[in-house]
Amino acid sequence: MPRQVDSAERLAAVGDAVVSIAVAAGFGAVTIRAVAERLGSSTSAITYVVGGRDEVLRTAVRREIEARRAQAEAAIGGASGAAGLRGLIEWAVLTPGERTHRLWLALVLGARTEAVLRAELDEFNRWWDERVRNLLAATGIRDIATARDVLDVTVDGLVLTGFDEGSPWSAARRRRVLDAMWSALEL
Amino acid sequence: MPRQVDSAERLAAVGDAVVSIAVAAGFGAVTIRAVAERLGSSTSAITYVVGGRDEVLRTAVRREIEARRAQAEAAIGGASGAAGLRGLIEWAVLTPGERTHRLWLALVLGARTEAVLRAELDEFNRWWDERVRNLLAATGIRDIATARDVLDVTVDGLVLTGFDEGSPWSAARRRRVLDAMWSALEL
Repeated sequence: MPRQVDSAERLAAVGDAVVSIAVAAGFGAVTIRAVAERLGSSTSAITYVVGGRDEVLRTAVRREIEARRAQAEAAIGGASGAAGLRGLIEWAVLTPGERTHRLWLALVLGARTEAVLRAELDEFNRWWDERVRNLLAATGIRDIATARDVLDVTVDGLVLTGFDEGSPWSAARRRRVLDAMWSALEL
Repeated sequence: MPRQVDSAERLAAVGDAVVSIAVAAGFGAVTIRAVAERLGSSTSAITYVVGGRDEVLRTAVRREIEARRAQAEAAIGGASGAAGLRGLIEWAVLTPGERTHRLWLALVLGARTEAVLRAELDEFNRWWDERVRNLLAATGIRDIATARDVLDVTVDGLVLTGFDEGSPWSAARRRRVLDAMWSALEL
């Protein structure tokens, strides 16, 4: 795949366009044509810089996920055990805006039918699972598997509940649920 | 709106078609044309029996939600307090198949942009909230608002987590998360 001198900038622009379309209408609406229209570019310019539709999706999603992963690591900040875990989980449910949560839902739904999205989501989930498992192991908690499931359900639930009710919950309201969860896990 | 002798049957067929399309591709893909194609019918036959697109969506979603609500009431079975609550929550996360959970996600996402879906979802949520609040009140629990939020997050989380990982969790795995939640709420 050919690359230009300013290819990083072009890839970023394509990535932003993909994310905007997916947030508004789901990944099914992300076509080379839709991306080109959004950028005021030609479809051939997109495929020249990035490749076909799968490559466009992969590039955009990977870029986005890597940015989130860096934020998550910063939130953990090298802490281990309960402190690191709390940093990670609070980051996941309190920090990202509605746009990120919408993108996440679009990704989870899109992964049902698009192998390229499934692969990127699986890769992220492997990282997340290992990170959570290691942090839980350092807390000395007995049932790591159940604790991990409870945390995953809490994170996914806090993402979905906002949409369910039409607008995201306040940070204070999310925090109360998290606090109940920490007590439940005795962390 | 005109009704035929066999209108209940026709409405049911339209409702099933709407649900199938929404489960597969979201409510954005539900058009009169798509419903007609699925039923091997004409678009004018659909609009004659049900009405325009909003009316088609409303009829299908209301029928589906009413069926779920009847199942939920049966699961509560007239029990009050913790027993009734457990019946309701276990029904929500253990009983419906993947199709119902997919429809629920499609409805939550569709409600962002379609007023008719928002109205039906809000109506269901009002019923759910009141039911959960009353059952919680009968348990004597102190902080009803937080308990209700924890239960809502758990239900939404268990719905979403299955899609997140590519396949729904086993009933045993969901039940372990629910058990942790009951302990947390001391129910």
